[in-house]
Amino acid sequence: MSTAVALAFQPVLDQIAADIAARPGRGRPADYIPALAEADTSRFGMAVAEPDGTVYGVGDWRQPFSTQSITKAFTLALTLSLEGEALWEHVGREPSGNPFNSLVQLEYENGIPRNPFINAGALVVTDRLHALTGDASGTLRAFLRAESGNADLDFDHAVAASEAAHGDRNAALAYFMASYGNIGTPVPELLEQYFRQCSLEASCADLALAAGFLARHGIRADGSSLLTRSEAKQVNAVMLTCGTYDAAGDFAYRVGLPGKSGVGGGIIAVVPGRCTLCVWSPGLDQRGNSVAGVAALDRFTTLTGLSVF
Amino acid sequence: MSTAVALAFQPVLDQIAADIAARPGRGRPADYIPALAEADTSRFGMAVAEPDGTVYGVGDWRQPFSTQSITKAFTLALTLSLEGEALWEHVGREPSGNPFNSLVQLEYENGIPRNPFINAGALVVTDRLHALTGDASGTLRAFLRAESGNADLDFDHAVAASEAAHGDRNAALAYFMASYGNIGTPVPELLEQYFRQCSLEASCADLALAAGFLARHGIRADGSSLLTRSEAKQVNAVMLTCGTYDAAGDFAYRVGLPGKSGVGGGIIAVVPGRCTLCVWSPGLDQRGNSVAGVAALDRFTTLTGLSVF
Amino acid sequence: MSTAVALAFQPVLDQIAADIAARPGRGRPADYIPALAEADTSRFGMAVAEPDGTVYGVGDWRQPFSTQSITKAFTLALTLSLEGEALWEHVGREPSGNPFNSLVQLEYENGIPRNPFINAGALVVTDRLHALTGDASGTLRAFLRAESGNADLDFDHAVAASEAAHGDRNAALAYFMASYGNIGTPVPELLEQYFRQCSLEASCADLALAAGFLARHGIRADGSSLLTRSEAKQVNAVMLTCGTYDAAGDFAYRVGLPGKSGVGGGIIAVVPGRCTLCVWSPGLDQRGNSVAGVAALDRFTTLTGLSVF
Amino acid sequence: MSTAVALAFQPVLDQIAADIAARPGRGRPADYIPALAEADTSRFGMAVAEPDGTVYGVGDWRQPFSTQSITKAFTLALTLSLEGEALWEHVGREPSGNPFNSLVQLEYENGIPRNPFINAGALVVTDRLHALTGDASGTLRAFLRAESGNADLDFDHAVAASEAAHGDRNAALAYFMASYGNIGTPVPELLEQYFRQCSLEASCADLALAAGFLARHGIRADGSSLLTRSEAKQVNAVMLTCGTYDAAGDFAYRVGLPGKSGVGGGIIAVVPGRCTLCVWSPGLDQRGNSVAGVAALDRFTTLTGLSVF
Repeated sequence: MSTAVALAFQPVLDQIAADIAARPGRGRPADYIPALAEADTSRFGMAVAEPDGTVYGVGDWRQPFSTQSITKAFTLALTLSLEGEALWEHVGREPSGNPFNSLVQLEYENGIPRNPFINAGALVVTDRLHALTGDASGTLRAFLRAESGNADLDFDHAVAASEAAHGDRNAALAYFMASYGNIGTPVPELLEQYFRQCSLEASCADLALAAGFLARHGIRADGSSLLTRSEAKQVNAVMLTCGTYDAAGDFAYRVGLPGKSGVGGGIIAVVPGRCTLCVWSPGLDQRGNSVAGVAALDRFTTLTGLSVF
Repeated sequence: MSTAVALAFQPVLDQIAADIAARPGRGRPADYIPALAEADTSRFGMAVAEPDGTVYGVGDWRQPFSTQSITKAFTLALTLSLEGEALWEHVGREPSGNPFNSLVQLEYENGIPRNPFINAGALVVTDRLHALTGDASGTLRAFLRAESGNADLDFDHAVAASEAAHGDRNAALAYFMASYGNIGTPVPELLEQYFRQCSLEASCADLALAAGFLARHGIRADGSSLLTRSEAKQVNAVMLTCGTYDAAGDFAYRVGLPGKSGVGGGIIAVVPGRCTLCVWSPGLDQRGNSVAGVAALDRFTTLTGLSVF
Repeated sequence: MSTAVALAFQPVLDQIAADIAARPGRGRPADYIPALAEADTSRFGMAVAEPDGTVYGVGDWRQPFSTQSITKAFTLALTLSLEGEALWEHVGREPSGNPFNSLVQLEYENGIPRNPFINAGALVVTDRLHALTGDASGTLRAFLRAESGNADLDFDHAVAASEAAHGDRNAALAYFMASYGNIGTPVPELLEQYFRQCSLEASCADLALAAGFLARHGIRADGSSLLTRSEAKQVNAVMLTCGTYDAAGDFAYRVGLPGKSGVGGGIIAVVPGRCTLCVWSPGLDQRGNSVAGVAALDRFTTLTGLSVF
Repeated sequence: MSTAVALAFQPVLDQIAADIAARPGRGRPADYIPALAEADTSRFGMAVAEPDGTVYGVGDWRQPFSTQSITKAFTLALTLSLEGEALWEHVGREPSGNPFNSLVQLEYENGIPRNPFINAGALVVTDRLHALTGDASGTLRAFLRAESGNADLDFDHAVAASEAAHGDRNAALAYFMASYGNIGTPVPELLEQYFRQCSLEASCADLALAAGFLARHGIRADGSSLLTRSEAKQVNAVMLTCGTYDAAGDFAYRVGLPGKSGVGGGIIAVVPGRCTLCVWSPGLDQRGNSVAGVAALDRFTTLTGLSVF
């Protein structure tokens, strides 16, 4: 919607890194699997990618980290590109209004998860992508490699195995939805796909580039179309209203951009038409979002005036 | 965030009105009070106001209607301007994930409503405004008159009385929050203020103009400041994530603008920096939003490309 | 169902009193109103009444205390005697499975409370009794006076006023049910009746005698019939499954008798065909039941072998 | 608690069978697995066993049927006999106040099911019995054979396989509790044990005899002790308050006996000290209890005056 003046992103990123470095308090890493619990909360990286693929960065912006739930945004886009509106018969697009693992609303709503970004919803979207492609996690990896230009981007099998070993609750969700007929893949196979997908390692640079289609209204890095303009807008809308667990309202209030976070400490965000961002720092707040990551995005919108509101 | 090309709004509105007229299905008027139940669902009006106060309209855009919950956006802005961040100790800003009258989450969260736009939250905001001004509904009326330039804009006392006569559930909400110490005004007095406020009658033109400060980043019609730029952005964020009852995700997905609806059939919406809109048609969908109103806003963003995403 | 050997109750009571005196830990008095919060937790009394009106006691068994929710059992019996099975269209008879003030299930079940002993259910039963008699609390007082033979038994107006002053949550419940059409009395009048009823003062002796009809299969002290044999059995069943807030299962498991407790620290219990009991000690456990009272009833069933199981 | 006059049970059973035969409406068989859905709702049998092992019957009282959840009462007793009070750290004993499969309260209460008779609770009890014996279902079968004197009593492997094929929801429950650390057995193994156990076939005569220890205050058919008098009383208490899904209050109100039902259409009931009963008819009401079975037990208590209240 804009033909804005050019912004020099590098000085903005340097300023943010300095501000974050001076800021006490980083939260605590996710502790439900050992691989994440050992993360160093002093790490911080941030990247901004322009629609033409120019990318700026600061700190640990080239360091691969565990993407975790950030992948849910890409899986949603890929599935929507293949299945279109029919996807919404399997999953809603309303904020969940409850902690991200809650089974309560799932029960009230007959096995249809509220949105694609709570775990139940992501399982359903993965189930659809797997049904449509035969290899959900492989399709995702290929997409991220192509868009980021990083052919080394890959799964971390140790993390996937660790997730599986602590995956009772996701198994419960999957079987519960299967009991309503909303999962087609055999549950053990679905869980393997899901955990593999969450284990993808990528850097801030990789993810800022890979999310570029959301700033380019659906156009991939090679100029082909992944989503229609309308679909790209819709993915951004779901990210804004549902992308940060039970803190979506607070994130919209403070940052004002579509975003998707992961418990690895990463967050991607989109300024439609202008740029995509990725920030990483492993310390989380109580709602599972990166403390330094949210603070950095908050600074970004304050310094640049870029916000959708 | 934009320096966009001028858009000719009048032809867009004419096109939308034609499209809506050709569209079957208008939903049903709110039926919980007789005054609303008699509304004619064939009525339709829409107005767009530019930041400089120029206003365009089509259909019944000068016809006063019952604003109902639309007033919650204005009450929020007025209270935030007086109380600042301290307001958020009394009410949250997360989507509710449940029908708009639900007591469930209120009980789980110790009498702190999820956001200012569910009824419980609006009662809390009204309680704060009443405590700060001594006359919540009078303050609201004065503000709407000043911003719209319509000195005749007023309460409909018959509607307020009808609301009060059917107000057992709002009484329950207010007493329930009072039991947690989150309401200071005596409940009968608070309810009177609340119902009076909801009974305000205004036209699409009035409301598009009155919401202008949300497009002007907090600046009132007379050039004075109601909210800081940051606060105005925050009100827009709350409108986008919580403004349309349990359909906020769907509204963001389809329309992609901050908006606030009322069961009188009106909806206001904001294109930050560009314009404010108000549409009215009394037939509602199952979630309490105007069927023709949502469709008209959907057409507006499609025809103009104006969307925050 | 029994023609049991005569039991000498006095030595049993003496033994229980000695055991309780040696037992540390009495819980804490109800603290939501000042009148109850000041109670002396060292007080303890217990009475047993035989069907013929012979009454035995120990400790503070003639000391009047605040009956509170114990009255709900009597109100239920009186209403059932007047309205019969039609009462169950207004209130259920299933255990609530939630803390006694919960609004959650009330909302799921359209304003029909789960049973007559949660506050919501007692409000509904009081509403019915008031509709049928024009004076619910007066009817209750007259009944308790007649059955206990204590013409001085009366309301404590200071306690009733204190309850009213802290009655926001009960007001919320009443308005909430009124919104579903399940309350006929104007809410302020209903609350006055309800709080007055809860404020009745009676001693263990009074209550053990007044509950005698439940051991006599529905027959009042004067030989007239209040309830049919089947109805008396039904009141006992509701007491066993719902009489001790969220601890009904635990009470049945430990004591094994129909019982009804109150936050004043009293508990009545019934051995059908054999006797009625009342115990009082103001210290409560976390679920609102008298610590020493439950322990004393537990001792009673162990020492006498009297239990319904 | 009684030294009652001898009752002639056979004429009572004959009268009940005649009454039931004249009664229209039998409900519908459980339809979630084909094996049960084909049941003939005109079938009806009932047996009464005296503490000395004398057994009376009418109709299809020697016809084996699928015991389903009736086994939960026996599994509870066996586990309690081995583990004692420590069992209650893994499962509660409060009525659930929700349909029998609900995950909601399980989530609120950190993976501790409300009682041993909802599916989640039965899974936990089976997990404990399996940990203590190495073969939960084999232990149960051996016990039922010994008590009934029927060495042919066995699993129906086709029913167990059918349950497993439709067992997604039970898998969800088990994984969910495992995520809280409240299940020790690997979930697939636990489910196999659980479904096998539910598939046990037995007749009214078998089950009335096998439940005899509950009327004999814990003493087995061979005179040895399974439970203490206090433990036997406790199992009866749990049956009365939790034994008939979400209809426990109604069952206590109408029948007034400890009971446990199964979706195969069977119900066992206990008159402590006097007799045990089993009734079977496959048509169920909406809450999963046999329509003719509940009616027959209701008639039994009316005709004999035997009720715990």
